[in-house]
Amino acid sequence: MKTRLAFILGCLIMVSCQRSNTTETTGDSAVASDPLLSWNDTPNKKVIVDFVTAVTTEGSPKFVPVADRIAVFDNDGTLWCEQPLYFEVVYSLMATRQIATQVTALQKKPEIKALVDGDMKTFMKRGENGLLEAVAISHTAITPEEFNKSASAWLDTALHKKYEKKYTELTYKPMVELLAYLRANQFKTFIVSGGTSMFIRTFSEAAYGIPPDQVIGTMFRGEFQQKDSSMRVTLKPELFHNDDKEGKPVAIYQFIGKKPILAFGNSDGDHAMLQWTSTNSLPNLALILHHTDSVREYAYDRDSPIGKLDKALDEGLQKGWVIVDMKNDFKVIFSYQ
Amino acid sequence: MKTRLAFILGCLIMVSCQRSNTTETTGDSAVASDPLLSWNDTPNKKVIVDFVTAVTTEGSPKFVPVADRIAVFDNDGTLWCEQPLYFEVVYSLMATRQIATQVTALQKKPEIKALVDGDMKTFMKRGENGLLEAVAISHTAITPEEFNKSASAWLDTALHKKYEKKYTELTYKPMVELLAYLRANQFKTFIVSGGTSMFIRTFSEAAYGIPPDQVIGTMFRGEFQQKDSSMRVTLKPELFHNDDKEGKPVAIYQFIGKKPILAFGNSDGDHAMLQWTSTNSLPNLALILHHTDSVREYAYDRDSPIGKLDKALDEGLQKGWVIVDMKNDFKVIFSYQ
Repeated sequence: MKTRLAFILGCLIMVSCQRSNTTETTGDSAVASDPLLSWNDTPNKKVIVDFVTAVTTEGSPKFVPVADRIAVFDNDGTLWCEQPLYFEVVYSLMATRQIATQVTALQKKPEIKALVDGDMKTFMKRGENGLLEAVAISHTAITPEEFNKSASAWLDTALHKKYEKKYTELTYKPMVELLAYLRANQFKTFIVSGGTSMFIRTFSEAAYGIPPDQVIGTMFRGEFQQKDSSMRVTLKPELFHNDDKEGKPVAIYQFIGKKPILAFGNSDGDHAMLQWTSTNSLPNLALILHHTDSVREYAYDRDSPIGKLDKALDEGLQKGWVIVDMKNDFKVIFSYQ
Repeated sequence: MKTRLAFILGCLIMVSCQRSNTTETTGDSAVASDPLLSWNDTPNKKVIVDFVTAVTTEGSPKFVPVADRIAVFDNDGTLWCEQPLYFEVVYSLMATRQIATQVTALQKKPEIKALVDGDMKTFMKRGENGLLEAVAISHTAITPEEFNKSASAWLDTALHKKYEKKYTELTYKPMVELLAYLRANQFKTFIVSGGTSMFIRTFSEAAYGIPPDQVIGTMFRGEFQQKDSSMRVTLKPELFHNDDKEGKPVAIYQFIGKKPILAFGNSDGDHAMLQWTSTNSLPNLALILHHTDSVREYAYDRDSPIGKLDKALDEGLQKGWVIVDMKNDFKVIFSYQ
């Protein structure tokens, strides 16, 4: 979490953007049976379809048994938008402000006091620590049940400033189709995200068809609390697993127990996961979602404080990983479209 | 791991037992469509079937949606035999002896030196620490790939002294049937074990139909190592998660993300998991496998150093949890029968 969040402070003041005037549809002329209707018929789409066909065709030299068809996806910037600020951070700042307004003891920390006062200048001065503090409070100062309720309510109502859409409507339609296409081909699809498991699990099943136990994210340390006949798991404001960079392959090993044959990411935070997947002795595919569409979404890579894509892009270009170009490869961007 | 292993030292010298002469079959007279053929038609079997029927019948007041049909099972003593010593510990002692014979630096620790020398008296004097040391060496001094190879080879060849059968043949047939029955009713089945994930994953898919990502166990800390183009996850001899007692509900929360509606254990190590499951607001079932069959298997509970069942039994009896009586409820015990 720490490294992941290091980049985002410069972005706390929301970027003001024009809403795009995209009028594209899901493509009336496409073949009805195409499971990837929201993708343009580009070479990248062909590579994906050819890979899935090869690993699922019995007798093919690239055939992979069902049990080994593990596919892992980053979330922020890969399955849904992450600009201008990771949506979970937007939620956390709101929630922490709300919690600390009521639980005034939390305001002993100057960064939290500043957040409650709406003094973002002071809050930002505390840098990464202030941000981590805010995320920790929003996720651990309440019970997991209260968190679920609060995060779900936020996702049900809050709107993204640029698109004026609910955040869960900003999942990428072509990626949701890809997940379904893989599952139809007996892949097991997982999220391996720098965001927290608990946040992603509040919407992953509805948004992506991915159940909670197939969501791996950053985790706070859990504790079992028992008082008479009441018992619950609570979380402490202490990192248990940092699911970013090298933490991703480690988590895949620990929680999935198999090396994936397909990994899809969009930033240097996914680099180790992509590299590790590409060392699978089974046929494998590493994919990067390159944000190239400044009109319909955002265009960013090497210099972005959010979703910085630099070293992974170099290696991807060099090694022939699939670099999905959102502008050219995506017929439609968002699920609401 | 530490607490779990604290009990077993007294058992390091294998108990010598007569092989049972059981001649029971899978029950020719039973209805062919009975998915629980190896269970006797007892009230306990009826409770299980009635529960599964109620939660899967649409319109039933106890109906539970598919997504919430989470079932968790302990492994040692619940899905396979754990006497006279946890099978993973038997493996670990053998493997550590083998590794430390080659990597002599490991013999600097007196307990490991004693193990290599076959001096079990000295080894046992080191108590729990010696045992933990041995487990850690067997699981972390080699790569995960080498571990898989070694553990799989051992499971393919080593025989249990009492039954003269491979350990994977000592899975409980009625329990394997129960797992399949639950899955046929769209439950998702998980192992939540005090043993390590890495050991259980070497056989869980073949033995139980449970894939690696649905196996939660004790874990050592992982580390991503990269050297030029080679990269791998290795494990350090340091506990990352102790999946015993309160560690079980915590792991279920962290890795599954939902409270189960069915939990099955056999010892006080499963107590917290059973308690927590029974607080589910959805209809739920807590079950304990009570080892009551001294002839066909082993009879033990409150005073056993392995699989001690005391407080959980008290609470189970008081709360009306299902206490499965192996002697009366199991028509057949083992999968090889």
